[in-house]
Amino acid sequence: MSSKPVDFPAKLVYQPTQNFIEQVASKAPAPGGGSAAALSGAVGAALLSMVCTLTIGKKGYAEVEDELQEVRARTEAARARLSGLIDEDTAAFNRFRVARKLPARNDAEKKAKDEEIAAATTMTIEVPLTTMQMCLEALHEVPTVAQKGNVNCVSDAGVGACQLFTGLEGGAYNVLINLDGLEDPAKVQALREKVRAARKEGRALFEQATKIVTEKLDGSHTNPA
Amino acid sequence: MSSKPVDFPAKLVYQPTQNFIEQVASKAPAPGGGSAAALSGAVGAALLSMVCTLTIGKKGYAEVEDELQEVRARTEAARARLSGLIDEDTAAFNRFRVARKLPARNDAEKKAKDEEIAAATTMTIEVPLTTMQMCLEALHEVPTVAQKGNVNCVSDAGVGACQLFTGLEGGAYNVLINLDGLEDPAKVQALREKVRAARKEGRALFEQATKIVTEKLDGSHTNPA
Repeated sequence: MSSKPVDFPAKLVYQPTQNFIEQVASKAPAPGGGSAAALSGAVGAALLSMVCTLTIGKKGYAEVEDELQEVRARTEAARARLSGLIDEDTAAFNRFRVARKLPARNDAEKKAKDEEIAAATTMTIEVPLTTMQMCLEALHEVPTVAQKGNVNCVSDAGVGACQLFTGLEGGAYNVLINLDGLEDPAKVQALREKVRAARKEGRALFEQATKIVTEKLDGSHTNPA
Repeated sequence: MSSKPVDFPAKLVYQPTQNFIEQVASKAPAPGGGSAAALSGAVGAALLSMVCTLTIGKKGYAEVEDELQEVRARTEAARARLSGLIDEDTAAFNRFRVARKLPARNDAEKKAKDEEIAAATTMTIEVPLTTMQMCLEALHEVPTVAQKGNVNCVSDAGVGACQLFTGLEGGAYNVLINLDGLEDPAKVQALREKVRAARKEGRALFEQATKIVTEKLDGSHTNPA
């Protein structure tokens, strides 16, 4: 008899995309916005990588080749990390849900339960915080990719910017909603500030990218925003 | 011997999410931003559906139950349509790529090739136009869902808004980049106007949703934008 642990449920990213969408739509609270934000971030980083790849080695782009090689190394690292965060976010949520149902029939159990809830709460904050930060880092690459990448892929750079912005905003929303579980008001305040600063920085990069892409695509050079 | 047609490549949505991300990142130009935009739209609609489901029948939400039932019927229809558009966008791109490689050794072949290129071009415009329009429709539901839905899911409503905004913007970018293939300048101008109007309307709804969600989540009620 094998004692191999059963890996169930399988990782979200190994399941068909259709299942992911259906599970989000279902009454199960996870996967929800946190995993969706990480997915957006991963797809956004993937789009930037693709634009770099479709630029490097192409005629007329020799000058930017080295720079885009370096950008791609960073967007590929971001893509790998963000892909992992899709499952980590749902795992954090499920850990918290299980922790809240632990027995607390005596002092020892009560202490263990409190500790597990605190650890799970920290995880539900740190995972989307990482999603947010990875997306912010990748957003810094967008103006370069949109400006210098293969002009035939400028729409892909634009969609990448939107996806990363969604990952940043979505991560931020998930950090904020889970701050309720923290007791230390100074820590809560510091995290709120961190989120606010990241959103402000990310918004500026996103608007810059939107402007570049829209001007390249729209004959009239009018920003619709 | 079976003569059953081989369904290859399999639909993108039936493949693992990890594969989708990897295919986006790869040197293959499709799936690219168009399919990614449709995916965002589908996930965004799914998130709104989830928030409705986690509100309907819950204590304290009896007043909004009927309204959210109706919203959910619409977001579920949008989700189904947008899920299909993930594959339709890549199919349109591939059709165009194949059309451009058709032989044109004589007048008959040249005519057939021109017609196929024209039909494929129309498809590469109409598919992201539909993505854009479905996302815009679903964005109209976001203020209601964010304002009246279960407050414990307000972050999911916020991520849904971002995803739909990405689907709208991403669809728009893909319409615009494919307009180059059209010859009728009046048609191009009309489509540019359509895209501009949709983006303006969608942006206003997105900013409204961002404000509602941020105020509900951020103790200081300061919009970071």
